[in-house]
Amino acid sequence: MSKGSINVSVENIFPLIKKFLYSDHEIFLRELISNATDATTKLKHLISIGEAKVEYGNPQIEIKINKENKTLHITDQGLGMTADEVEKYINQIAFSGAEEFLEKYKDSNNETGVIGHFGLGFYSAFMVADKVEIITKSYKDEPAAHWICDGSPEYTLEAHDKKERGTEIILHISEDEKDFLEDSKISGLLKKYNRFNQIPIKFGTKTETLPLPEDAAEDAKPETKEVDNIINNTEPAWTKKPADLEAEDYKTFYRELYPMQFEEPLFHIHLNVDYPFNLTGILYFPRLTQNMDIQKDKIQLYQNQVFVTDNVEGIVPDFLQMLKGVIDSPDIPLNVSRSYLQADGAVKKISGYITKKVGDKLSSLFKNNREDFEQKWNDIKVIIEYGMLSEEKFFDKAKKFALYPTVNNSFFTFDELVEKTKDSQTDKDGNHVILYAANKDAQHSYIEEAKAKGYEVLLLDSPIVPHLMQKLEMESGDAKVQFKRVDADHIDNLIKKDDTVTSKLSDEEKEKLKPVIEGAVNNSSYTVQLEAMDSKASPFLITVPEFMRRMKEMQATGGGMMGMGNLPEMYNLVVNTNHELVSDILNANEDKQKQLISQAFDLAKLSQNLLHGEELTNFIKRSYDLIK
Amino acid sequence: MSKGSINVSVENIFPLIKKFLYSDHEIFLRELISNATDATTKLKHLISIGEAKVEYGNPQIEIKINKENKTLHITDQGLGMTADEVEKYINQIAFSGAEEFLEKYKDSNNETGVIGHFGLGFYSAFMVADKVEIITKSYKDEPAAHWICDGSPEYTLEAHDKKERGTEIILHISEDEKDFLEDSKISGLLKKYNRFNQIPIKFGTKTETLPLPEDAAEDAKPETKEVDNIINNTEPAWTKKPADLEAEDYKTFYRELYPMQFEEPLFHIHLNVDYPFNLTGILYFPRLTQNMDIQKDKIQLYQNQVFVTDNVEGIVPDFLQMLKGVIDSPDIPLNVSRSYLQADGAVKKISGYITKKVGDKLSSLFKNNREDFEQKWNDIKVIIEYGMLSEEKFFDKAKKFALYPTVNNSFFTFDELVEKTKDSQTDKDGNHVILYAANKDAQHSYIEEAKAKGYEVLLLDSPIVPHLMQKLEMESGDAKVQFKRVDADHIDNLIKKDDTVTSKLSDEEKEKLKPVIEGAVNNSSYTVQLEAMDSKASPFLITVPEFMRRMKEMQATGGGMMGMGNLPEMYNLVVNTNHELVSDILNANEDKQKQLISQAFDLAKLSQNLLHGEELTNFIKRSYDLIK
Repeated sequence: MSKGSINVSVENIFPLIKKFLYSDHEIFLRELISNATDATTKLKHLISIGEAKVEYGNPQIEIKINKENKTLHITDQGLGMTADEVEKYINQIAFSGAEEFLEKYKDSNNETGVIGHFGLGFYSAFMVADKVEIITKSYKDEPAAHWICDGSPEYTLEAHDKKERGTEIILHISEDEKDFLEDSKISGLLKKYNRFNQIPIKFGTKTETLPLPEDAAEDAKPETKEVDNIINNTEPAWTKKPADLEAEDYKTFYRELYPMQFEEPLFHIHLNVDYPFNLTGILYFPRLTQNMDIQKDKIQLYQNQVFVTDNVEGIVPDFLQMLKGVIDSPDIPLNVSRSYLQADGAVKKISGYITKKVGDKLSSLFKNNREDFEQKWNDIKVIIEYGMLSEEKFFDKAKKFALYPTVNNSFFTFDELVEKTKDSQTDKDGNHVILYAANKDAQHSYIEEAKAKGYEVLLLDSPIVPHLMQKLEMESGDAKVQFKRVDADHIDNLIKKDDTVTSKLSDEEKEKLKPVIEGAVNNSSYTVQLEAMDSKASPFLITVPEFMRRMKEMQATGGGMMGMGNLPEMYNLVVNTNHELVSDILNANEDKQKQLISQAFDLAKLSQNLLHGEELTNFIKRSYDLIK
Repeated sequence: MSKGSINVSVENIFPLIKKFLYSDHEIFLRELISNATDATTKLKHLISIGEAKVEYGNPQIEIKINKENKTLHITDQGLGMTADEVEKYINQIAFSGAEEFLEKYKDSNNETGVIGHFGLGFYSAFMVADKVEIITKSYKDEPAAHWICDGSPEYTLEAHDKKERGTEIILHISEDEKDFLEDSKISGLLKKYNRFNQIPIKFGTKTETLPLPEDAAEDAKPETKEVDNIINNTEPAWTKKPADLEAEDYKTFYRELYPMQFEEPLFHIHLNVDYPFNLTGILYFPRLTQNMDIQKDKIQLYQNQVFVTDNVEGIVPDFLQMLKGVIDSPDIPLNVSRSYLQADGAVKKISGYITKKVGDKLSSLFKNNREDFEQKWNDIKVIIEYGMLSEEKFFDKAKKFALYPTVNNSFFTFDELVEKTKDSQTDKDGNHVILYAANKDAQHSYIEEAKAKGYEVLLLDSPIVPHLMQKLEMESGDAKVQFKRVDADHIDNLIKKDDTVTSKLSDEEKEKLKPVIEGAVNNSSYTVQLEAMDSKASPFLITVPEFMRRMKEMQATGGGMMGMGNLPEMYNLVVNTNHELVSDILNANEDKQKQLISQAFDLAKLSQNLLHGEELTNFIKRSYDLIK
């Protein structure tokens, strides 16, 4: 038996790193700036604990393009490296300086803000550069070092006369990647990844106009001066304490995050936790808009103020994906699959924490200013309803503040609604019927009939609300709550009371009438029902039974009963035997019967938006004839 | 100055490989099966060139789960490895045996079907296993070797008494990943990645019922036998020559690819090219369905019959993403970003080749069986129209076969349409007006008016067709083609001829009538226009001007003129001064005027589906009153 250790061959690994380290080549700039940031924050830490006896100053990171030499320069004023350190940290792939540093200083400070984890980041430079140089001068009193590597694993290392502390990385950009020598490209990348970087980043200069002195002549021209163009805000709102921020600060930060977003957010939630995981951030509930572009402004994930991704699937619960804002956590594993994220304990806790904070915030908004909460309801309801259906814990919390608006713009909680309608809307079998409409316009005449009886009619128009009704009905238990849409039946049948209306027509007359109407309607989608109703109610009425319709709707949004989605639409045609017109039909001659039934049936169809095409054209012609 | 070579430290790289080699851990099985497949195809090749003097037999790859030991076994009957080869290929991370093999035998055969590229695949085993064993016996006359590694870089290697040629990989699945010991999980992965693998894969056994002998007794029970459960089809249709396949074979393969897809495809395109890149595949034009699940059945990308992804963005042109089927190419770089793909020359050529093949196929379908092509048009038009807008080369080709259906179900090419309508539909200013409807039902009455004049009315209902109209108008040049929707104006104004209709009303009467109507309409969205029209035409008519409407529609699908999307809807109310009802209105008393105008205005609104809510309820009540 032989023993040994697996070898990694650099000749084989190096081309892999160059090609496949990151699927996006642009990541190299983020990685090098993160290294520069680490070098600066590490120096600050060493100074603070007395280990480095130098002046910290106001260090910045400078990005420079040299078009002539086809080079890109990233220069920091951090702790720099000695020649020995270059040997140690650069010439050993995947020897992570960051991990060693964190390990060594873990007792003195656990918030060093060090970004790097694996030490591979530097090598991403080779994804875009044929040749890479490092010129670096340590804060220690040692000569500067100059390292050059042409992309083969061979390098040279020699002394350099650099005097200022810090590191300059010089990338000789390869022909294929010359985009990275364009100002606009680099400035775009800086904006994407580094606009909240911890250390100021300078990219070029800009001209500032100086104020005129008070005694300036009237025709005096203001002086201008060139100043550094700093591209980032080193202290974004989420890094501050909630106590130090005003409402206006949160709005300002929202505009900073989404400059193209003109709508103000409805409210914000400041996240701030350091045990059992580190997480800061600000989430915003946006106002819903028709503008689809809003979907592009997603929640952004940062790690120590460096942008990572705007795909927060698995980290933020699904029902909160429509929120906007920022979360920043060093504890979220990157570059891993969604299924891995979902199984990861820390990530589960983060997701649970976010859900809880959102629930608490909504609950306090509801308690502190109900009127304001009601005004915001239509913008936030889809998120809340989705959350109630997908997370049981959130359901239990939201039950107390979720609102049910009526067509008259009153807002009830579920308990209030049940209390308010219990007496008037319980039918003779003890079912407590909650009436609702999905569209005020489309169901206008049905709503009016229900209102005339003194019933409350809810306006429930989000696409997932049928699922929520189903859940509320199931959980109502002995209260026997049933949701019914106003057009599910004639109002007297929706909430059946004991009082019966006597029919003006005899049974014989009804038996004579029914086939006449069925013959004129001549459509198998309609079931004709003769009902003795109020003589003032509509003569003809089209209804859509609740169960089938709801199952079809539920299936359209995922769920419901299998196979219901493809069933044809079925309607009832309710004929009011007590209406004058119906008696007229009974007593008319055959031609007149047909004309009256056609007109009444068409008018009933109009109430349900079912009259189209040739039928509508014919109806319009017939109606003009009737005016003449 | 010192020189040196960058080092890779295995202690640091190994954990990285374990965690981050692939974002999806499940990939390990695909990688190990690919290695097993390579080992088998390599052996076949060595036998074919006389280098290996052994029997090839009917090698298969076996996958076995041992629940008790918590191990997963992948066993092949390929060329195996000697102890020396294990040292060379396994103990050196990223030393790719595949590349060496291809290099060595590149002259003898360039279609070896070898899958591996970088030799990292084997190490993906450590993503899911604490400990990995290899038991392997080479086709050469040497003892078998047994390699064990517990996930640290340390390994042991000793002799083994395995007699059969080939390699067995034993994964001791780690606690976190015990899903991979479930039959259903492994069988799902095999189905996803390997259902068209080149070498048969056995996973368990199944029971087959043997046919009864002819002289069996009536109550005889058929015998059953256990047979290998082979999960893959080693010769899928796309690997065969088009000449060897019948139409039915393509349909059978479609059902094999998408077993849940009950609709047959409309037609297929067989891709087969080996210069300047290798690509095989079959693309299908699906029948459009309402069922959103169809979107899940995307084009699948394979490499040497191993599934890679169903995200073919960048490889297949955008407008063909709705197609279904398979493409298989060893020349598409994997694990790279979309922006990289788009810049890659080979990928651009692949995309161009696919576009050309699709254009050629459509062109030949059109020429060979126009009737059939017309029947398929509604299912394929969106793809073709999108292609015409996004690829100029495709536009030039598609111009000759793109169809423009009429509301009467005739189909014209653009040239035929222009020829057919030139004389009748050119207005007095020389504009050639093409009339169209977007919806036969919603625009029924307007279509009827146009048909009554003998005009052709197209039915153009895809959401991107406004962009295509815009392009066709611009390219028509001197032909001055203008598309106008039938409800953009009254028919006499849409195509203005020289003949004028005399007005029954005097100018004075008109001046008196206009404010009366404007007062009763009382809505700033409507501009009242008095027009002398045919006395049989509608008394009131609502029209929607073409330009504004089209710009709004174009903006909704991306494009159009900035800011038009948010403008309010504007309508014209055209009043036919020659209609009897209009004279009646003029001569009626104030109350009657109001009633008549309301009713006529409501009827005009119905034609445009503009009457809703309370207005509709009132209209219905008013109409019942008129019947009584």
